[in-house]
Amino acid sequence: MSLENPDYYSIGSFFLTLAIIFIAGKKISSLFVRFKQPEVLGELIAGVILGSLGLIPLYGEMGYDIFYLLSEVGVAILLFEIGLETDLKELLSVGLPSLIVAIIGVVAPFFLGFYCILFLNDLNFLNFSSESSLFFVALTIGATLTATSVGITARVLSELNKLKTVESRVILGAAVIDDVIGLIILAVVSGMIATTGSGEGVSSFAIADIGIITAKAVGFLILAIVIGGLFTSKLFMFVHSLKARGSLLLGALAYTFIFAYLGQLAGLAPIIGAFAAGLLLAKTNQKTLIEDRLKPVADVFIPIFFIMVGAAVDISVFNPFVKENIAVILLALVLFVVAVIGKLVSGLGAFSLKANKLVIGIGMIPRGEVGLIFASMGLVSGVLHKSEYSALMVMVMLTTFVAPPLLYRFFRD
Amino acid sequence: MSLENPDYYSIGSFFLTLAIIFIAGKKISSLFVRFKQPEVLGELIAGVILGSLGLIPLYGEMGYDIFYLLSEVGVAILLFEIGLETDLKELLSVGLPSLIVAIIGVVAPFFLGFYCILFLNDLNFLNFSSESSLFFVALTIGATLTATSVGITARVLSELNKLKTVESRVILGAAVIDDVIGLIILAVVSGMIATTGSGEGVSSFAIADIGIITAKAVGFLILAIVIGGLFTSKLFMFVHSLKARGSLLLGALAYTFIFAYLGQLAGLAPIIGAFAAGLLLAKTNQKTLIEDRLKPVADVFIPIFFIMVGAAVDISVFNPFVKENIAVILLALVLFVVAVIGKLVSGLGAFSLKANKLVIGIGMIPRGEVGLIFASMGLVSGVLHKSEYSALMVMVMLTTFVAPPLLYRFFRD
Repeated sequence: MSLENPDYYSIGSFFLTLAIIFIAGKKISSLFVRFKQPEVLGELIAGVILGSLGLIPLYGEMGYDIFYLLSEVGVAILLFEIGLETDLKELLSVGLPSLIVAIIGVVAPFFLGFYCILFLNDLNFLNFSSESSLFFVALTIGATLTATSVGITARVLSELNKLKTVESRVILGAAVIDDVIGLIILAVVSGMIATTGSGEGVSSFAIADIGIITAKAVGFLILAIVIGGLFTSKLFMFVHSLKARGSLLLGALAYTFIFAYLGQLAGLAPIIGAFAAGLLLAKTNQKTLIEDRLKPVADVFIPIFFIMVGAAVDISVFNPFVKENIAVILLALVLFVVAVIGKLVSGLGAFSLKANKLVIGIGMIPRGEVGLIFASMGLVSGVLHKSEYSALMVMVMLTTFVAPPLLYRFFRD
Repeated sequence: MSLENPDYYSIGSFFLTLAIIFIAGKKISSLFVRFKQPEVLGELIAGVILGSLGLIPLYGEMGYDIFYLLSEVGVAILLFEIGLETDLKELLSVGLPSLIVAIIGVVAPFFLGFYCILFLNDLNFLNFSSESSLFFVALTIGATLTATSVGITARVLSELNKLKTVESRVILGAAVIDDVIGLIILAVVSGMIATTGSGEGVSSFAIADIGIITAKAVGFLILAIVIGGLFTSKLFMFVHSLKARGSLLLGALAYTFIFAYLGQLAGLAPIIGAFAAGLLLAKTNQKTLIEDRLKPVADVFIPIFFIMVGAAVDISVFNPFVKENIAVILLALVLFVVAVIGKLVSGLGAFSLKANKLVIGIGMIPRGEVGLIFASMGLVSGVLHKSEYSALMVMVMLTTFVAPPLLYRFFRD
């Protein structure tokens, strides 16, 4: 008999949408696998198709929040899995190169983006009401270009079975550092926008804030690794001794979710916390068992994330018969080129290592949802027009879709 | 960097709640396992505790819908797992005894409940404004007592490794039939209430309706088994040949969810559809592989269901210092005794089989959420007072909590 809760997204629709996500995701990604292309690209494209057909609830629609939360569980499990396969010592051993890669990967796209907007303004391609509004648009677009979203790259590295390589370690280390830098940039840019476009730069409030924000984020990472290192092995010996069905798996997941929660409390992305949890469990005796039991659960949740990323793509913006789209697409393409160059250059930061710098650069390309936070902030605060915002959306999409095939091209044996 | 969506239940709270559910569930249920008690009882009690402490979103609170949907996925996966371990031929071979058990299990509690209310009225224990209102209260309470909720019993049978026994087959078959009968009763009772208490009985509209409802539900079951039987094996040979990671598991889950959806479209509980999907996949060559990969996923989702069932228990009703509670508890205890006797008697319906009739009767005791639908309908339509509704709630809880230990007592080797 049906339980009816009319207030909620109905059980029937929920079951059907999950089934559609699973079927479309696996059907399309298995085509990609057959032609030796990235599986994750198949899931992204499945998402684009399902989103366009209205088969997945999109942002603002009924049921969206459920799939959004499930997709966050998916990407947290992905980063936990990646952490499980990563050796903390080896990760720290490339700490300095990772830091340099992260810094170049922030500075280069920011200035390239900033001056690109000034240049487009000189060409009269963009029109601004005032010098100050030009400055803030350039600032926001530059900031958006600095983001790194490690989900896509991590998934492709895992598909290619390359997680143990030095390139992967540098990319993962740089992505963690980038998340901390991103926090600082967010504080600076939002501080500047909050001074209502007076152009006076960072207020004193924002500077104090930045210190606290950085201390919280770095402090979380250090404390998590140090304190976590002290008790994790003993904790999981105990968890493993519990008799109830699935204790070890649920213990590992609970541990991941708590770290994701604490990471978010510290201002970081939940996935950074999940990655730290993986690093810690990698050193326990239960690691192989956990990996084994986690795999089917990961298979269920991870595709939901990539399909939701694909579903967020608004393909109507690519319709060339709509006149306004042409300017958006042109701006997007320019920003995309800037975005790719800015991150490719960052690979050179690993100059001290015997590593494929091109691969490291490619790995840093995807901007994902992190870049979208800046763009949304710009739109909501009135700094960006809808057209500039749309161009940033398209740039983010393109970086997300271009990285997997490039990694397959340059990093497959 | 944190993605903030203030409209939604936040990612942080979601991760934390999931972690709490997993930890509390496994911690308490492993105590039960150690003392050779039902694991599921540990999860129910964990739910009661977490719900009372406000650590799980309850009905009407922010985030409830997400955990509600996840719990529905959990019970669908449970019934799919049970279906996978059930042989359709053996299930059909006890079809007639199952039917008799189901019918007795509806008729006996209904009349016991109905006359019990009339008797309590004669004792002046209950007060009614009119004969007609007495009749409708007795009718609704009788109907609530007829429900069977198979989730708890199925889980305990699985824990006890008894799914292959004749008792289990009779219980599962009777539960499926009971779901169809429940639909009919729902149509009759809601039809009678819709005739605004005139006492004229079932309207002609309701009778036509009942035919359609029954045909849809029975038709779904027959079509699902017959048509599903034709193509399922071939379909899963194809799914198994797909190269993408996790195709077989996701294919099986998608199949389950589609059947759950279709079951609900036909008016049945989604879990009946999920059970049918399991029966069909039980005959494929991929059965063992699917079972294997499903296990960790089941371990994640199933406890969410039982913890949410426990969390729905409102313990404040058991506070004996609140004067109104005493009448509620007394009525609840009377109804509980009626509920237990009514279903225990149903076990005798399997007279033609060499089976433990007591175990079959115990297996039919839990009312679960199915009974609550009747009770809610009664409350919303104004037939039931809050006190009668609360008593029904308590009765449902007690039947849910009493079945697992009784099954352990009488059905363990």
